[in-house]
Order: sequence, then structure tokens, then C-alpha cells
Amino acid sequence: MQRRKFLKTIGVSAAAGATAPFVTTVSAQETITWNMVTSWPTNFPALGTGANDFAERIEKLSNGRMRIRVHGAGELVPPLEVFDAVSAGTAEMGHSASYYWRGKVAASQFFTAVPFGMTTTETNAWLYHGGGQALWDEVYAGHNLKPFPVGNTGTQMGGWFKEEVNSLEDMQGLKLRLPGLAGEAMNGIGVTTVNMPGSEIFTSMQTGVLDAADWVGPYNDLAFGLHQVAKYYYTSVWNEPSAVLEGTVNLDAWNALPDDLKDVVTEAARASNLAMISEFAYRNAEALETLVNEHGVELRTFPEEVMEALYASSMDVLQKQVEDDEQSRKVYESYQAFQKRVRPFTDVGEYAYLKARDNVAADR
Amino acid sequence: MQRRKFLKTIGVSAAAGATAPFVTTVSAQETITWNMVTSWPTNFPALGTGANDFAERIEKLSNGRMRIRVHGAGELVPPLEVFDAVSAGTAEMGHSASYYWRGKVAASQFFTAVPFGMTTTETNAWLYHGGGQALWDEVYAGHNLKPFPVGNTGTQMGGWFKEEVNSLEDMQGLKLRLPGLAGEAMNGIGVTTVNMPGSEIFTSMQTGVLDAADWVGPYNDLAFGLHQVAKYYYTSVWNEPSAVLEGTVNLDAWNALPDDLKDVVTEAARASNLAMISEFAYRNAEALETLVNEHGVELRTFPEEVMEALYASSMDVLQKQVEDDEQSRKVYESYQAFQKRVRPFTDVGEYAYLKARDNVAADR
Repeated sequence: MQRRKFLKTIGVSAAAGATAPFVTTVSAQETITWNMVTSWPTNFPALGTGANDFAERIEKLSNGRMRIRVHGAGELVPPLEVFDAVSAGTAEMGHSASYYWRGKVAASQFFTAVPFGMTTTETNAWLYHGGGQALWDEVYAGHNLKPFPVGNTGTQMGGWFKEEVNSLEDMQGLKLRLPGLAGEAMNGIGVTTVNMPGSEIFTSMQTGVLDAADWVGPYNDLAFGLHQVAKYYYTSVWNEPSAVLEGTVNLDAWNALPDDLKDVVTEAARASNLAMISEFAYRNAEALETLVNEHGVELRTFPEEVMEALYASSMDVLQKQVEDDEQSRKVYESYQAFQKRVRPFTDVGEYAYLKARDNVAADR
Repeated sequence: MQRRKFLKTIGVSAAAGATAPFVTTVSAQETITWNMVTSWPTNFPALGTGANDFAERIEKLSNGRMRIRVHGAGELVPPLEVFDAVSAGTAEMGHSASYYWRGKVAASQFFTAVPFGMTTTETNAWLYHGGGQALWDEVYAGHNLKPFPVGNTGTQMGGWFKEEVNSLEDMQGLKLRLPGLAGEAMNGIGVTTVNMPGSEIFTSMQTGVLDAADWVGPYNDLAFGLHQVAKYYYTSVWNEPSAVLEGTVNLDAWNALPDDLKDVVTEAARASNLAMISEFAYRNAEALETLVNEHGVELRTFPEEVMEALYASSMDVLQKQVEDDEQSRKVYESYQAFQKRVRPFTDVGEYAYLKARDNVAADR
């Protein structure tokens, strides 16, 4: 059990119990120090600072009994190796996005974002009440991980394009950074997609490795300066109507926590989830204003034929995913059934309201 | 200081420090027992159970150092006397809705819901990042209270009507239960509004005291059986595009808490806020299905002329409120400025997505 040995060594700073099995060494009296590895540059807006906030919340709520050292991308492990590192116990915690692990755990993609899928509020309803969390637990337990939603970007944007897209033809052969199921759907309409950490996008756009890139939304995109390497900002989100950030805890470390500290981590995750949603709504609004008014960014929408092709392609990708992988089928059936159930209320609720506000209060 | 004496007597169960001033009697070692009075029947769906969850979260996160006894409406104080009771220290905490206090603190109304105002996500962005919480603190400090957002219903419905509304004329003279600024706006178009606790709506509809009633949304409305006393369910929300539930803490009790327990209450409130938002999204979806499919409820939208009249009347009411009351002006200026800033992003983000999903995936 190399993993447990590692955790004993770096995870528990108190001296007591070193000879007992790991699961019994953490008592209510000890201070626990954990490492959290992330996929974000240190202090990166909302994502990195959100991971910091999560760590601080755990420290505060545990009254200092748990201390979490947050590591930016590449400090302990590369940005896209967070899953493996936490699974193996190289670090006890991680903060990342589950769809980065599509090559390892296909079903993980459904816990970040689904093309033409659920909004942030709908997704949280599914995760917390509709069985989503239980399925996520089940999928990740097979990889020695306990997952939590720890933040959500809210509605993202459709991405940055160097050239305007006026037809489906214009999309052919474009090199686009886009991860997850949506990346596959883009491939299906003739785009060539790649995944890379956010920090590499700017240079890849600048050097012509990429013609277009989706990152997150105004706040994060502004932070990477993407407006300096592409002029057109597409507002047609279809790929990530919301995107969950995941917190992961090594399952051995999780099982060894006293119940009250499990509560601390669980509720800190919940509070951090809302904190990030709220911050994104605020900062994206600010940043959009800056991008348009100060940097002259041009907002565009994809032509209808592109949106229709993306929808058809997304459905194909989802279908294929479900046929190829039993775990994906199980997760997507739950996701899809809940989306079907929640949409009628969203349509007469939030959506109807946004239409009403638009109709009568366009000036406001 | 009768208030402080009361708190010393019932608020702190530990024996130590009884002769010291209240503000210094709470130490890190003591167990603190507080009473929470609410405006909801005990265990009432989402609102009452949300108050219970908040209390449980505080107990868990404080590792049992704080215990909160939750009291349903009328158990310690009547449902609409929560504000006064917590202000006076009859109970240390309350769970209610701030617009119930319009007669006492006009500016409080902006912290629940504003007609044609912000959505849930926008509201949280304003409260947590846009200065809303600081203004709320300032307004409530004058009444010896510390407020928190502790839940949100999400988008509500337009209310239950015994008769169909086909014109502005049909609204004339209707007796409608609707609190807050929206109630005043309804008065402005010829409706007669009253406020009453939710528990009295069913009987008032049945006996003809009311012709129509707005309560919350499918989940809560189903719980009160409102479909049994009115056939038409209006989906045109304009009055409460989101509605914040407020937690209040007596300010003396708050100031006497050790910092770590302040953190516990603050983060338990934040976690409870998201928990309630998510639960409403889930349960409203379920309940809407039940109301329409099992109870044959007919969904309707207000005619365009009614919506336009309500918008004009709402703007009048807001204008008047702001002219009459300096505190309201200050709060509304902040609210309105943020709404103006956040709407462009909501429009290209969440709203654009809902339109896109509707266009391409109407069948899904």
C-alpha cells in the first residue's frame, strides 16, 4: 500500500498513531495537512482563486484542524495529471475539471458539461438531488477518488475565432482548442480539435497552431489576453452551458477523515460552489464590458446551420459514447432523464422571465 | 439592556461567565444554544426544511458547539413577527423573507425580489460581490440585526387565478395575495392586494376573500393545495424573478460570537443558500409535472398589455419608493446599476443558451 504510506508520511502532521493503519491514525485531536494540486496557474482568476477559497474555507470551518496547501498547475504535477496524482495519493486533493479525463474515464465528461445540456441551476439540481452525485461517487470510487462539485463557471462563451464564421463551410479544417464531448462534436462537423491547458492557448493562437479556441468566458479569457490574438468572440454557447469544477479527494484519505471533518469538506465544497458561480456572474459581466468597450472585441453568433450541425453532431457523439461504454450510458441516462424533466419548469420559469424582461424592459 | 439579559438567560447554556457582560461570556469552550424563529409552518417544503438544514449545518460545522432550535411559524412568535422578535432578542435567529418588513424598513424589500429585477444568479452576484450584502448589513444594523441570504426560491410563478385573464380589464378589482413592491405595482393597475402568511392562502381562496394568489412556485403551491382552489396557473413571472430567503441574527448575539463561529454561520448560510436553490429547481420540476399531468392544472400567460402595464406600474412604484426614502434610494441605485451591468452578459450567456436549446433541441 504505497499510497497509504505516502499519506501517512505527508498527510498527517501529528506524531501519534504512526504505527496504526492509516484509517485509524486521524483522530479528532490532530491537525491534518493536505496538498491540493490544481489544473490552474496559481491564483488564476476564479478557478485558481476558487481553489484557494475552498482550501481557506476548510481551514476556517475546521477551526484550523485541517490545513490545505494549494499548488498551481505544474508545481507538484502537470495541469492535466491532477486526476492521476490524487488517485495515487501523490496529493490528497485536487481541483480541476472532470472532462479532462475523457481518455481514462469516459463517463467523467458528463460531470463537467454536456453539449446542449443543462444550465448551472439544472446541473446542481441533478447533482445534489437527482442522483448525479451518487453516480459521480460510483464512477470515481473505481479510481480511488471522492468527487465534489466545487464551483461552476456558469454559462460559457462559444469561443474566439480569428476569422468570422458565416457558414458551415467556414468551419471546415479549423484548428480549435476545445475539450470534452463538445470537442468530439466539433470534429464531427469538420473542425480539428485539440485539448491543451489554458496557459498554452495564447501562444498556440499567436503562432498559428490554433485558428480558434474556447476557454471559459469573458473573465478568464481576458486574463489570458485572448482578445489580443483573435478578434471575434462567439456568444453562441452550445458546448458548455455550464461547467462544473471538480474537487477530488483521495478515497483512502477521505475514508480516514473523522465524520465531522467530512462534513467540513462537504459543506466547504458546497459553499465554494456557490461562491464561484456568483463570482463568475459578477466578473464575467465586468470583463465583457471591458472586452467590448475598451478592446473593441466583436461579438458574433454562429449561423443557424452551424448550430444545427453542432446539435446533430452532439447527439451523434453522445449516442456513440453511450453505445461504447456502459458507465457512460448509466450516467447519461440519468442526466438526460433529469434534463427532460427539469426543462419544462426552466422554460416557464427562468427562460420565460428572461423573455419577459427582454420584451418589456429592453432599455433597462 | 433587556435584550442582552434575555440572551444570557436562554442563549448560552454553559454556566461559566454568567456575571460578565454578554459580549464576553461566549468562549470557544462553551456550547451555545440559539432559537431560530421562522415564518414557515414546521418542516414546510424547502422553506421550513431549508431553515432546518441551515440549523443542522451550523451544528455540524461547529462540531456541536452551536445548537439551533428551529421554531415553526406561531410556535414562539407569529409568522410575520420574525424581524421584531430577532431584533429584540426574543430569539437569536430568524428565517423569513425581507420584503415582509416593508412597513418597518422600506429598503428591506430590495433584498428579496424586485419586479422585473435580477435572476437568482444575478442577485447572488450582487449580494456577494456587487455590494449588496454590505448595504443589507447597513440597513439591518439600524435594527440590531445581521442578515444573510439563506436560500432562494429561484424563479417563481405568476400566481393562481380562479378566472382566466384575457385583458387588462379582467384584472380590475381582483383581490390578490401578493407582498412587496410587486404587490404595490399590482395595486397600480387596479388590483387590490393583501399580504398574509402562506398558511392562510388556501382558506382565503376557498372562502372568496381572494380571487387570486401568488405564493412561490409549483413545489410550495402544491404543498398548500392551491390547485384545488384555482384552476389557472400563470407562468408569467415578473414579480419575483428570484426571491432571497433571509437569515437574521440578533446583532448583539452576532457580535458576541467567537470569530470561528461567525465563519461557521456565514459559510453555513452560503451552503444553505445553494442547497435551497438546487432543491427548488429539482422539486419545482417534479411538482409542475404533477400539477399539470395529475391535477389538470392549466398553464397560462398574462396578455401582453397586462405585462406592459405591470412593467410601467413597477417602474412607478420603484420611483416612488426611491423618492420617499433615502435608504431605499441608496439600495436601489446599487441594485439597478448592477442589473444594468450584468444583463448584457446574461443576455449573451444564459439567455442566449436557453434560446439556442429551444431552437435546436425543442424535442429533447
